Amino acid sequence: MIRSLAFTTQGRLHSRDIEKALLPTLLSDTNLFLWVDLENSTPEENKFVLEDVFHFHPLSIEDCVGVSRSPKVEEYTPREEEKFTPYLFMVIHAVDYSRKDGVFATSELDFFLGKNYLVTHHAVPLKSISVTEEQAINGTMHIAKAPDRMAYTLLDSIVENYKPALDELSQEIGDLEQEALQRPSRETLNKILLVKKEVMHLRRIIGPQREVLARFAHGEFKLIRAHIVPYYRDIYDHLFQISEMAQGYADSLTGILQLYLNMSSNQTNEVVKLLTLITVMTTPLMMVATWYGMNFREMPELTWRHGYLLAVIVTFLATLATYLYFKKKKWF
Amino acid sequence: MIRSLAFTTQGRLHSRDIEKALLPTLLSDTNLFLWVDLENSTPEENKFVLEDVFHFHPLSIEDCVGVSRSPKVEEYTPREEEKFTPYLFMVIHAVDYSRKDGVFATSELDFFLGKNYLVTHHAVPLKSISVTEEQAINGTMHIAKAPDRMAYTLLDSIVENYKPALDELSQEIGDLEQEALQRPSRETLNKILLVKKEVMHLRRIIGPQREVLARFAHGEFKLIRAHIVPYYRDIYDHLFQISEMAQGYADSLTGILQLYLNMSSNQTNEVVKLLTLITVMTTPLMMVATWYGMNFREMPELTWRHGYLLAVIVTFLATLATYLYFKKKKWF
Amino acid sequence: MIRSLAFTTQGRLHSRDIEKALLPTLLSDTNLFLWVDLENSTPEENKFVLEDVFHFHPLSIEDCVGVSRSPKVEEYTPREEEKFTPYLFMVIHAVDYSRKDGVFATSELDFFLGKNYLVTHHAVPLKSISVTEEQAINGTMHIAKAPDRMAYTLLDSIVENYKPALDELSQEIGDLEQEALQRPSRETLNKILLVKKEVMHLRRIIGPQREVLARFAHGEFKLIRAHIVPYYRDIYDHLFQISEMAQGYADSLTGILQLYLNMSSNQTNEVVKLLTLITVMTTPLMMVATWYGMNFREMPELTWRHGYLLAVIVTFLATLATYLYFKKKKWF
Amino acid sequence: MIRSLAFTTQGRLHSRDIEKALLPTLLSDTNLFLWVDLENSTPEENKFVLEDVFHFHPLSIEDCVGVSRSPKVEEYTPREEEKFTPYLFMVIHAVDYSRKDGVFATSELDFFLGKNYLVTHHAVPLKSISVTEEQAINGTMHIAKAPDRMAYTLLDSIVENYKPALDELSQEIGDLEQEALQRPSRETLNKILLVKKEVMHLRRIIGPQREVLARFAHGEFKLIRAHIVPYYRDIYDHLFQISEMAQGYADSLTGILQLYLNMSSNQTNEVVKLLTLITVMTTPLMMVATWYGMNFREMPELTWRHGYLLAVIVTFLATLATYLYFKKKKWF
Amino acid sequence: MIRSLAFTTQGRLHSRDIEKALLPTLLSDTNLFLWVDLENSTPEENKFVLEDVFHFHPLSIEDCVGVSRSPKVEEYTPREEEKFTPYLFMVIHAVDYSRKDGVFATSELDFFLGKNYLVTHHAVPLKSISVTEEQAINGTMHIAKAPDRMAYTLLDSIVENYKPALDELSQEIGDLEQEALQRPSRETLNKILLVKKEVMHLRRIIGPQREVLARFAHGEFKLIRAHIVPYYRDIYDHLFQISEMAQGYADSLTGILQLYLNMSSNQTNEVVKLLTLITVMTTPLMMVATWYGMNFREMPELTWRHGYLLAVIVTFLATLATYLYFKKKKWF
Repeated sequence: MIRSLAFTTQGRLHSRDIEKALLPTLLSDTNLFLWVDLENSTPEENKFVLEDVFHFHPLSIEDCVGVSRSPKVEEYTPREEEKFTPYLFMVIHAVDYSRKDGVFATSELDFFLGKNYLVTHHAVPLKSISVTEEQAINGTMHIAKAPDRMAYTLLDSIVENYKPALDELSQEIGDLEQEALQRPSRETLNKILLVKKEVMHLRRIIGPQREVLARFAHGEFKLIRAHIVPYYRDIYDHLFQISEMAQGYADSLTGILQLYLNMSSNQTNEVVKLLTLITVMTTPLMMVATWYGMNFREMPELTWRHGYLLAVIVTFLATLATYLYFKKKKWF
Repeated sequence: MIRSLAFTTQGRLHSRDIEKALLPTLLSDTNLFLWVDLENSTPEENKFVLEDVFHFHPLSIEDCVGVSRSPKVEEYTPREEEKFTPYLFMVIHAVDYSRKDGVFATSELDFFLGKNYLVTHHAVPLKSISVTEEQAINGTMHIAKAPDRMAYTLLDSIVENYKPALDELSQEIGDLEQEALQRPSRETLNKILLVKKEVMHLRRIIGPQREVLARFAHGEFKLIRAHIVPYYRDIYDHLFQISEMAQGYADSLTGILQLYLNMSSNQTNEVVKLLTLITVMTTPLMMVATWYGMNFREMPELTWRHGYLLAVIVTFLATLATYLYFKKKKWF
Repeated sequence: MIRSLAFTTQGRLHSRDIEKALLPTLLSDTNLFLWVDLENSTPEENKFVLEDVFHFHPLSIEDCVGVSRSPKVEEYTPREEEKFTPYLFMVIHAVDYSRKDGVFATSELDFFLGKNYLVTHHAVPLKSISVTEEQAINGTMHIAKAPDRMAYTLLDSIVENYKPALDELSQEIGDLEQEALQRPSRETLNKILLVKKEVMHLRRIIGPQREVLARFAHGEFKLIRAHIVPYYRDIYDHLFQISEMAQGYADSLTGILQLYLNMSSNQTNEVVKLLTLITVMTTPLMMVATWYGMNFREMPELTWRHGYLLAVIVTFLATLATYLYFKKKKWF
Repeated sequence: MIRSLAFTTQGRLHSRDIEKALLPTLLSDTNLFLWVDLENSTPEENKFVLEDVFHFHPLSIEDCVGVSRSPKVEEYTPREEEKFTPYLFMVIHAVDYSRKDGVFATSELDFFLGKNYLVTHHAVPLKSISVTEEQAINGTMHIAKAPDRMAYTLLDSIVENYKPALDELSQEIGDLEQEALQRPSRETLNKILLVKKEVMHLRRIIGPQREVLARFAHGEFKLIRAHIVPYYRDIYDHLFQISEMAQGYADSLTGILQLYLNMSSNQTNEVVKLLTLITVMTTPLMMVATWYGMNFREMPELTWRHGYLLAVIVTFLATLATYLYFKKKKWF
Repeated sequence: MIRSLAFTTQGRLHSRDIEKALLPTLLSDTNLFLWVDLENSTPEENKFVLEDVFHFHPLSIEDCVGVSRSPKVEEYTPREEEKFTPYLFMVIHAVDYSRKDGVFATSELDFFLGKNYLVTHHAVPLKSISVTEEQAINGTMHIAKAPDRMAYTLLDSIVENYKPALDELSQEIGDLEQEALQRPSRETLNKILLVKKEVMHLRRIIGPQREVLARFAHGEFKLIRAHIVPYYRDIYDHLFQISEMAQGYADSLTGILQLYLNMSSNQTNEVVKLLTLITVMTTPLMMVATWYGMNFREMPELTWRHGYLLAVIVTFLATLATYLYFKKKKWF
């Protein structure tokens, strides 16, 4: 699906859902800023927009429509025979996380950012795109004046969307800590390792993303005007904080793992303690009873008048002594 | 709450609790140095001071009044249409730690440092602020001559306040080591992991703070005069030492954890030893007694004259031998 | 075996399997691009091509024909008395992985890349070579116009061939996770360590390879024309992604190892639990039975009318109580 | 205590224990080199020397007389109104280690190194100071010609003094390894962790010290003449070697820890083995004896002629078989 | 022992075992290249060659004759009053490893490399030295034309000699893996830790060596002519590969350690399993036999006609059921 919007340099909506044939004309009008959004687009749509209208470099097109890529940003400057104007090609990962499935899903969003156009490409509908589109059309926040401003708004919204995912992660880690402490089961380890994997995954996504934004924040690209750079630095700060949080989660999980393993080894300890306790507590009775079960013809105790009573008393006292000994040693 | 103070360039108090309407006037007087402190301020107060009086860049205002941020410093230089003078925006974390709750709480302090003004913003009352204010009013230490001097005094006081918190941490770690050695319980691991978390947290706070001060110490900012830079280098050294201490704490905690786990596995070992001991020590008696409990019609020993006595002696000697064997092996 | 191909600057095949004597002539024709492939070549063939025709630097020849080397790239510029033109010498590791043997085998591929020639050397037949040769002869993808383009195609194909190997690795890791969870055996640890070794090996190969490509991607070499550099950057991105994947595999394996060790310690736990259970459950019966096996002349219970019944009932109830106790503690 | 020495530029002793009033005069004589050593000095002495005579920067005075600091070096250049000449301020940690207490104690030594003076400050008497003083007075090694030469001699002596401490550490680690292998006790772990802590401490001291010397070795400071720099590089090399040794110790201790933990888990293993052995070996006898302790009216075996003999033989053979089985499995 | 050789600039042997008095004369002849090898030399020999003939800087002489040093390279340029010509001082560690002792011994080799001389110093005879000497005298490989060429040959030979040591290490690690898998004993851990220590040691040697060669490979030293630099880069590559191999060994050893620890914990598991098995299998018999060992006057089963037979059958069936249960659970 192709969505296209044209704005005047004052940030007002000029036209939308532009006819395909008109796109090149509007693109060449330097008083307009053109945003084309390709959502789950067909190969034909891709070819038309990326090749026929914008004449992008084949490598960036391949990166855009091909298999998933790591976050990155690249600057393309045209050679003589190439028809495109200089542009930035950027790959960013948006996050989509919902409790139901418990999966930390990310989806790729590709940007082509030129002097007076922005082309975005993504496989699934993204909240950030629809929200920003609405704001741009309403013209509220002056975001539609230029592509660098618009790209900032989109990126900011994407990074903002990491927050709920992180909150859920944080919640889950808290729950896991409780579980590991109070009722550790075989399942617990599995859950810990699963969440750990997700945190690792998160860190691997955030890492290159941060590097991409760092390049923007340092004002490396001419296509981003100087007074817009602080805004990108702000996104960079956000990403920095997220990666600090992810680091904190990783630390917590290592602690929880240690807790779990300790609880589990404590359980073995408890079981062995119980075994030892039972064995030791029954030992006096078993010794006395087995002993007087012998069939020697002459065992004086057996014929004593209070022999049995004595056996009962000895057994009782020995067991009591054992009991008190363990009581003192705090085994109960 | 807005607190405002104006000082002459000689560091003498000019006026305080200045009327709102007068603030812009005093600000434009280059012979004065203006300090405005926003403590737990209302949105209106924020808007008035940050936007209407000082015209700060919207991004720094957002960072200041918005959610918690990592420590950082940013330099803002005005573009043509922007009304502010160049300033530094800094986020620092002050620490507030008390035994009672055992929580290592930090609170954010934001600085706007201009050529002749200093604006501070914080949510909760800070000891560093009130102490510095008093010193400035008394005019004792020449700290009120210029914003860079004043900011140094504030930062120094904040970093100084980490010390008691670190001492308490150090104390707790020492206690934990004793506990792990002498009476390790299930609780102990929990405490170790808790303190470890706090140390991790401390390191994550100190890290970026150190980087911020490093930039000051290298004389990167023109707003900090050359002869003041060594003072900032001094704070940097303090932070370096604190982060070294935190590293030392982390090492200690790793050792304590290993100690604890070892003590815990030692306990299992002891329990199993006891079980084995009891089993082995009762074995001779049980074997003899069970054996002579058999009902064969003809078991010569049973009818021997001293059969029973013999059984007693054999049992006693075998048990004694076992006892001596374990004694020699140092199981007692 | 020597395979040689000459192409015109338009990328058309000029001649193939060129007579040895003609090689120097074709090499000196700057309108031609010469590709010589040495596959499992004899020392004589090596000497002829590398020394007599191309006059390469002895060190690069030694690296090429000698023992296996780490991936690297080196630029050779001739001194006065040396007869070669400037060239790049590159060592790359191609991967060859098949389920049957489960071995992650790599084989070395050496490149000599000059202004108008490409010499490749490898010990075993490589799919990448044969595929690229075919494409070059068919002249489909303009890859035979220049050595830098041709080298890119070869490198791209080699890196592309890592993908199936990685997929198999990923599959194996998934299987191992299942195995560790459901039926951990002594074998499992062995397999985990084996796959871990392979992942380590993979990372050690990819690492220097990435650095080599990074140098190409930064446009460090003049022999690679500027408009070809983005293509090399693309290969670099691929390698970056592969090394991220390898990192992910390493993380997964650490998790699986922890899972396995935990399952294995769980088994001990289960066994000890069973032992304790049996011991405890039989304790009432053993105590009662042993007790009333005593031979005291006067044991009133033995002569009670319902003495035996009482013993049965007591034993049953005590066992039942024990059973219910453990039931409640969820030992079953 | 103030010790003061003045040397001529030929390295000859000019005067010693100079009267306080003369110090400024001698300092202003550029043909003399002045060494003032403050050992455990009173606040008044500090004030007199550091402030009144040398007019050092207040920050360096604070660092010198205040609480303990990390090793560092700082260059102070005077501003217009400041009276001191350019100087280097350096904090170095000397080591003092003796077997008796087993404590790895370090004490701080502060240097002020000017063009024609050296001021040293330390709390406790240091061997390095007294030895160097003696050499300087004897005029043997030309060390008293200039402050940079003298500072080198002092630093060299301090670093040299690390060697015996390191040797003792090395000895202790060797002893610990033996102990862990031959008679691991609860104490052992404690000792291991203690020595580990010391090694960590050592590394944390050596680290910044090395960085300080690296700056000297790179010839960063003008106050150190070019032909003296190689001598500082030599100290740097020493520190590098010490930190390599510390790294080696840390590795050894990790190995010893693993050894200890393994020995300790081996012990549990041995105990369980013993328990199993006893249980299994007594099983045949217990089964036979218990079985024939039954009171069935008709148990044919009991009335057999050689019934008892048979029971003895069966028991003996079964026990023997068990014994041989374990013998074969190498349990003894 | 002093060995001295003089070569013409064509690499031909000019004279050998030169008289001491002639050395300075030959040294000043710029048409000759002088190689002096000090093997296990006396202090007098050292003094004569290093001080009297070559006038080296005292620091380099101290490093050469003093205690063992880390690998390093330093450039010495003479000051006015110093008599030596510019030279490089290098410390390299040669390896000497033989199965018999199983010790990974290294010995130091010091180089002084000047414009027309090479001085080598070592405590023990080195194969690399004797082999290179022979090659130089035979004049086969043009290695005796200049000191930089000669030093390369020596270094190459030294690095080449690491290979057999590495092969033995690799062999040992393979053996250890087998041992850990098939018959882990208390010894095994010791061996693993020993080999690990050696690998650590190897890495610590190779590290600085690599850095030294990296400086040569980057052409940092003017004494190494540009067209010789690639040869040093070649040695650097070798060292890089060796350090990669050492990393691989370290990884393997970590795996083997994990294997060993797991095997050892498996053994405990097996022992506990056996204990449980025996206990459980004998339980039916013990219960039945103990029960019918009771002496109640009226126990109907005892007087039943087939009472004993029934007891036998019950015992047999219960034991069989238990046996089958464990069979199914794969305990055998």
